[in-house]
Amino acid sequence: MTKWLLAVTLVLMALPSSTVAQSKPLVLASQGSFFVGGESKTSKELTSSTTGPGAGETGDVTVNQMYVQYQTPVNGSQHAPVVMVHGCCLSSKTWETTPDGRMGWNEYFVRKGHSVYLADQSSRARSGFDATKINAVKLGQVPPSELPNIFMVSHQASWVVFRFGPTFNTAFPDEQFPVQAADELYKQMIPDLNAFLPTPNPTWTNMAALAVQLKGAVLMGHSESGFFPEQAALIDPTGVKGIVTIETGCTTTLKPEELSRLAKIPILIMFGDHLGDITGPFGSFWTTGFDNCTKFVQQVNDAGGDAQMMYLPKMGIKGNSHMLMQDKNNLQLADLILGWIDEHVERKKTAHHK
Amino acid sequence: MTKWLLAVTLVLMALPSSTVAQSKPLVLASQGSFFVGGESKTSKELTSSTTGPGAGETGDVTVNQMYVQYQTPVNGSQHAPVVMVHGCCLSSKTWETTPDGRMGWNEYFVRKGHSVYLADQSSRARSGFDATKINAVKLGQVPPSELPNIFMVSHQASWVVFRFGPTFNTAFPDEQFPVQAADELYKQMIPDLNAFLPTPNPTWTNMAALAVQLKGAVLMGHSESGFFPEQAALIDPTGVKGIVTIETGCTTTLKPEELSRLAKIPILIMFGDHLGDITGPFGSFWTTGFDNCTKFVQQVNDAGGDAQMMYLPKMGIKGNSHMLMQDKNNLQLADLILGWIDEHVERKKTAHHK
Repeated sequence: MTKWLLAVTLVLMALPSSTVAQSKPLVLASQGSFFVGGESKTSKELTSSTTGPGAGETGDVTVNQMYVQYQTPVNGSQHAPVVMVHGCCLSSKTWETTPDGRMGWNEYFVRKGHSVYLADQSSRARSGFDATKINAVKLGQVPPSELPNIFMVSHQASWVVFRFGPTFNTAFPDEQFPVQAADELYKQMIPDLNAFLPTPNPTWTNMAALAVQLKGAVLMGHSESGFFPEQAALIDPTGVKGIVTIETGCTTTLKPEELSRLAKIPILIMFGDHLGDITGPFGSFWTTGFDNCTKFVQQVNDAGGDAQMMYLPKMGIKGNSHMLMQDKNNLQLADLILGWIDEHVERKKTAHHK
Repeated sequence: MTKWLLAVTLVLMALPSSTVAQSKPLVLASQGSFFVGGESKTSKELTSSTTGPGAGETGDVTVNQMYVQYQTPVNGSQHAPVVMVHGCCLSSKTWETTPDGRMGWNEYFVRKGHSVYLADQSSRARSGFDATKINAVKLGQVPPSELPNIFMVSHQASWVVFRFGPTFNTAFPDEQFPVQAADELYKQMIPDLNAFLPTPNPTWTNMAALAVQLKGAVLMGHSESGFFPEQAALIDPTGVKGIVTIETGCTTTLKPEELSRLAKIPILIMFGDHLGDITGPFGSFWTTGFDNCTKFVQQVNDAGGDAQMMYLPKMGIKGNSHMLMQDKNNLQLADLILGWIDEHVERKKTAHHK
C-alpha cells in the first residue's frame, strides 16, 4: 500500500462511521470538461453598443460548440460511457442534484461504474449561442421580424406539462416528483435558443462525434432531446453503442434504410405515468408521443432491431412525472436503465453492477 | 477497515502503479449543484411565436438566480471553502480543465483540501437570463432600441486583451498561456448579457448570500467579476472570510465607512505580466487597472486592513496572461493563493497544505 493510499484510508477511517454509511466518498479516476464541435464565424455585431469595446469591430467568434463535463470512476473502463443530454429550457443541471437535494443520475451512474458525460446542448448554457442577430436588430441593420424565437416555459405550464398534477399547484395523489421543491426546478429552467441553430442541429452532429471520440458510448436524451441519440446515429452510428430515449415524441416516418441503421443499435424508450391525465393545450401531447414511440419501437424491431419500451405504469411503477431523473424514485429508474445497458449493450446475461 | 474501504483499496492497488503516480484518484466527500437567489417574474412574452406553446400566455419565470456547482474533499472541513466566479464572456468552464487539457484550479483546490464552489454569473450559462425583452421586440411591442447590449469578444480582441501577445496570433516570447490551444479558449467564450440585469448586480447579492450559507468562505473573482467579492462584502460581509481579486479594475472612490468594512477582510489582488505591452483600444486597460488596484490596496491598508498586491513579475514570475488560471504555470499560481489563504484567512503561521 502506498503512502498516499494509507493516508486516504486513515482519513476515511477517521470519519464518524455514520457519515461513511450515509454517503460513501466518491472515488474518481478523473474528471474534467471540454468542447465538441464548433466553428469560427465572422461577426460585425459583436456588440450593439456604438461606443466602447467591440463597437464597429469585425471579428471571429466560435459558434455551435457543445460543452461537455465528465467524470470517470476508478473502474470506469469496465462499463460503457453514458452521454446525458437535457431537454427544452433546461441545462445539464437536469441530471445533477435533484430539486429536493438528492443524488442525481450523473453521480449515481458514476458510482455504478460508468463514465458519465453531461452535455449542454449547443446554443444553451455553457455552450453559448450566437448573439449576432440580436445585436444587428438593436443596431437597426435587420428588422425585428428576423429575430429567431426564444422559448421560455412558465411555472404554470411546467407544472402541467411535466405532469406534476392536473392543474397548477395541485399534485396527483401518487405524484413522484418532489413538488414541494418545484421552485428549485423553476430555477433550472432557462431560455431555449434552439431556433438560432442551423440545420441539422449541431447538437446531433456533436453527440455523434463525441460517441466516436469515446470509442463507443450510450447516448441518452430527454424530452426535446429524447430523439437526439437516434438523430446522432443517423448522422454517424460508428460510436453509438446504445440509445436511451426518455419521454419524447418519436419520428415514425423514417425510411427503411434509416430504420435498418437504427436496428443495429439497442434502443430503450422510457415513459412515466399520467400521460393522459392532463388537460389544456398539451392535453394530448404525451399520449401522442407515447403512441408514436410505441410505433417506432415496432418499426425498429420489424427491421430486425432490439428496441424496447419501458412504460413504467405497466411495470407497476406509478406516479412518475416527465422529470423522471428528479422524481423521488429516480434511482430505481436509473437501475432499470443500468440493467438494460448491462443486458442489451454490454451483452451480459446477468445484470450485476458493482 | 470496513468492507467498502477494503474494496476501494483493492481497486486502487489493482491499478498499474504508473497510472496512480500520474494522477491519483480524486476522493470526494460530496458534490452537487444548487441555486442561490432568484425571484419570480410575470412575463407575457414567454415566446415570440404567435402560435404554439406559450403563445399569448402570461406566466411566471424565475430570473436572477445563480447556479453553483460544488465539490467537497474528504478533509474539506479543515479549510475555508472557496467560491470562484468567472469573468466577462466566460462561464465556470474558466476554472476547469485548461484549454490544453491540464488540471484546472477547481480540482486542484479540492485536492488541496478546500471545498470549491463554481458559480455561473446570474444571466450567464446555466444561470439563465430573462429573454422577455428580446421576445417583446420581435412581437413589435417595444422598439429595438430598448434591447440591452449583448457583448461578444472576438478571437482577435481576446488574444490582445488577454495578453497572449502584442498582435493577433503572435505570442510574447515568454508567454505562459498555452497559445497553441487558443481555439479551445474561444469555445469557452459566450455572449455576456450582464446589461440585462437590474442594479445592484444580483451576482453580488448571491455571492454574499452563498458565503453566509457556507458559514464563511473565500470569494474569488476574475476580470469582469474581479471586484465582485468586494461588492458582495459591501452588501453583506457576514460570510466573507477572505477576498481574492484577480486582474480587474478596482474602485478607488469607496467611502471611508466602506473601506473600513473591507478592512476587516483579508484581501489578495493578483496581476500577471505584460500589462503595458499591448496596443490598440485596450492599450492602457491593464496599466490603469493595476494602478487603481494598487491605490485600492493602499486605501484598505490605510483603513487598518490586510490587503496585498501580488504583482507576479515583481516576484520573478514572468509571462503570465490575463487567463492566469489556465496558464502553463497555473498550479504554481494556485499555490500562491492557497498559501495566502493559509496565512491570512486561516491564520496559520506556516503555510503547510496537505
